[in-house]
Amino acid sequence: MALIVHKYGGTSMGSTERIRNVAKRVAKWARAGHQMVVVPSAMSGETNRLLGLAKELAPPKPGDDHNRELDMLASTGEQASSALLAIALQAEGMQAVSYAGWQVQVKTDSAFTKARIESIDDERVRADLDAGKVVVVTGFQGVDDAGNITTLGRGGSDTSAVAIAAAMKAHECLIYTDVDGVYTTDPRVEPDARRLTTVSFEEMLEMASLGSKVLQIRSVEFAGKYKVPLRVLSSFTPWDIDIKEEARSGTLITFEEDENMEQAVVSGIAFNRDEAKISVLGVPDKPGIAYHILGAIADANIEVDVIIQNLSKDGRTDFSFTVHRNDYAKAVDLLKAKVLPTLGAADIVGDTKICKVSIVGIGMRSHVGVASNMFRVLSEEGINIQMISTSEIKTSVVIDEKYMELAVRALHKAFDLDQPAA
Amino acid sequence: MALIVHKYGGTSMGSTERIRNVAKRVAKWARAGHQMVVVPSAMSGETNRLLGLAKELAPPKPGDDHNRELDMLASTGEQASSALLAIALQAEGMQAVSYAGWQVQVKTDSAFTKARIESIDDERVRADLDAGKVVVVTGFQGVDDAGNITTLGRGGSDTSAVAIAAAMKAHECLIYTDVDGVYTTDPRVEPDARRLTTVSFEEMLEMASLGSKVLQIRSVEFAGKYKVPLRVLSSFTPWDIDIKEEARSGTLITFEEDENMEQAVVSGIAFNRDEAKISVLGVPDKPGIAYHILGAIADANIEVDVIIQNLSKDGRTDFSFTVHRNDYAKAVDLLKAKVLPTLGAADIVGDTKICKVSIVGIGMRSHVGVASNMFRVLSEEGINIQMISTSEIKTSVVIDEKYMELAVRALHKAFDLDQPAA
Repeated sequence: MALIVHKYGGTSMGSTERIRNVAKRVAKWARAGHQMVVVPSAMSGETNRLLGLAKELAPPKPGDDHNRELDMLASTGEQASSALLAIALQAEGMQAVSYAGWQVQVKTDSAFTKARIESIDDERVRADLDAGKVVVVTGFQGVDDAGNITTLGRGGSDTSAVAIAAAMKAHECLIYTDVDGVYTTDPRVEPDARRLTTVSFEEMLEMASLGSKVLQIRSVEFAGKYKVPLRVLSSFTPWDIDIKEEARSGTLITFEEDENMEQAVVSGIAFNRDEAKISVLGVPDKPGIAYHILGAIADANIEVDVIIQNLSKDGRTDFSFTVHRNDYAKAVDLLKAKVLPTLGAADIVGDTKICKVSIVGIGMRSHVGVASNMFRVLSEEGINIQMISTSEIKTSVVIDEKYMELAVRALHKAFDLDQPAA
Repeated sequence: MALIVHKYGGTSMGSTERIRNVAKRVAKWARAGHQMVVVPSAMSGETNRLLGLAKELAPPKPGDDHNRELDMLASTGEQASSALLAIALQAEGMQAVSYAGWQVQVKTDSAFTKARIESIDDERVRADLDAGKVVVVTGFQGVDDAGNITTLGRGGSDTSAVAIAAAMKAHECLIYTDVDGVYTTDPRVEPDARRLTTVSFEEMLEMASLGSKVLQIRSVEFAGKYKVPLRVLSSFTPWDIDIKEEARSGTLITFEEDENMEQAVVSGIAFNRDEAKISVLGVPDKPGIAYHILGAIADANIEVDVIIQNLSKDGRTDFSFTVHRNDYAKAVDLLKAKVLPTLGAADIVGDTKICKVSIVGIGMRSHVGVASNMFRVLSEEGINIQMISTSEIKTSVVIDEKYMELAVRALHKAFDLDQPAA
């Protein structure tokens, strides 16, 4: 008997029929002797429907701040689906109870629409578990010190589930989703992509932040920080699949160094085309220019990803970075208005037709030549590299968007990711 | 400047366009210098949609109790509409904030799906009002001592609004709805029905409980108990109607005896066809039979309305009462199984094709012959009276359902309700 947390995404909760299947699956786990905490997302489409109504009432305008009320609004989607799941569990003959974030309580800061969990009081949940109940806890939401409802941002239910698993020292947190695990790359781009049976949380962190949409990145950070074993698996297997088989399915995200992991140098190829590149040309090369440029960007709440500063030539340098495509126009306008005049740079240029492709692998720590291998593969395909960024366990390149699929497939093959693990 | 509570029903909140109109109307009142608390219902159809999902997951079965979770579920409708209204108010340039019942707090008992308000802590709302904000408070819901969400039952938003008005000692509570006031009877049955400019809360209480659907009966009880001036008016007048004209429109429900009221003996004709009649025939006439019969009915949570016991003949009597039509079959089965054998009665007979028609008027207290006048009118129309029930300010008769419209129209005319008040 163990304490297990299940998390179900919006698609898995998308209709009463699917909710009933979730209830049957959870009941199976509970009847096998496990203490069960379940964290459901809102029914698919519901959050968009609610926020769409808000947008009709208050089309976004600079300076407007409806965030507190948007959280009051959006949080109702998860509350409704949690109550529905509890009812479905009761209909399956289980004792079940659902709690909103403020009831547990899931305490967060007051950053409405993107709050961060500060603490979870597990007393109420534990008492219910000990009384033999299945406990459903709303994902995505919490409550701040002033008693306002907050939400954690898109995908926040993953984080809720992991945070609850951490607070309750759960044996494992199972993230049920519409894919059956973490793949070496997106199978829609590379049909030979292979499901990983395990992946380290550091690799997962890089893959999530690099655009693998399986898990919200903060949930992976949380899992790593609190060492919560996290499994990504499909909610579309039959609910009455053998529980032992189910418990081994999907991809386990591990945090223990000595875990029996696949020893491939590169575990996966991540990519995204959500970014745009901005270059500030002819910047006088003196201390503080990075701060001068990026400080203005940060003040405007724009997140920066890859940052490159080229070698200086004649006392001037080029400074390039990438931002989310949605922030591109705003960032360029800002730099032209505020930074260009004071910095004495020559020009601002940009490109939205780029993509980022990365190889990720914990084995890269101990292997040399992995990055140069990557560059060779791309060169052989005639793909020009515009920016390079590296970390201990990943190497990313920014390339022309039109070569994205080609690059992913070539790298997938070159690093033997289409071959079963040794 | 006064503290005013507005309540808007589901139809008034039925679309973003209507919510925008509500916001404009509230903003007009706030700009006229009033402190505004607004209590909206869920968007029309939303509560039914949510409860419909629950019904799909757990078709109602005897012994099942999903009530706590149904309240978690249903309360989300009002939370969403409150947040949307706050956003619409902000878009109108107002400072606005919305609170769920547990945030205010609106404390109730733990009778899920039909909780009763026990207390309201107005501190948070008052601080916001003093800071110049419009405060939106969810209707229909509260929180019990254990921190569970409760709901007040259908139409509960009226009660919420009145309870908040009472707690805050509001100058007036305006109930905006899809009718423009309280009528002498239902205009769909009697086209000459006339809007009352004022009605006493005792009359309103009788009319509400007798089937006038304008206000939830508990809201009227609350208004009477705490002497909250209550006005029923239309939300379908243009939002920019002159505020003085709007403040005089609809029907004012008064509680002061010396108020300048319409002095008609009969103020209105109420009716409903939701009841069914059950008669226990040939009951041995001895002490305790009413308790014996109705105790069993009450234990099954069935509400009884009109109760009649006929004169005894040969030591036996007939005992008749009405219940809601939905409870009819259950009540008859119960009586046949449990009461008939032990009581030694002859038979149980019933009739679902009945209706109840009532004349209501505070003037009846001081006028004799009003009831007999009613019986004469019905007799002249050839309508047979099956049961009679009277109180200080109303007389009700149970008649064949097919005569309902005829009876209402004849009584409306006989008591001069089609004539303007003196």
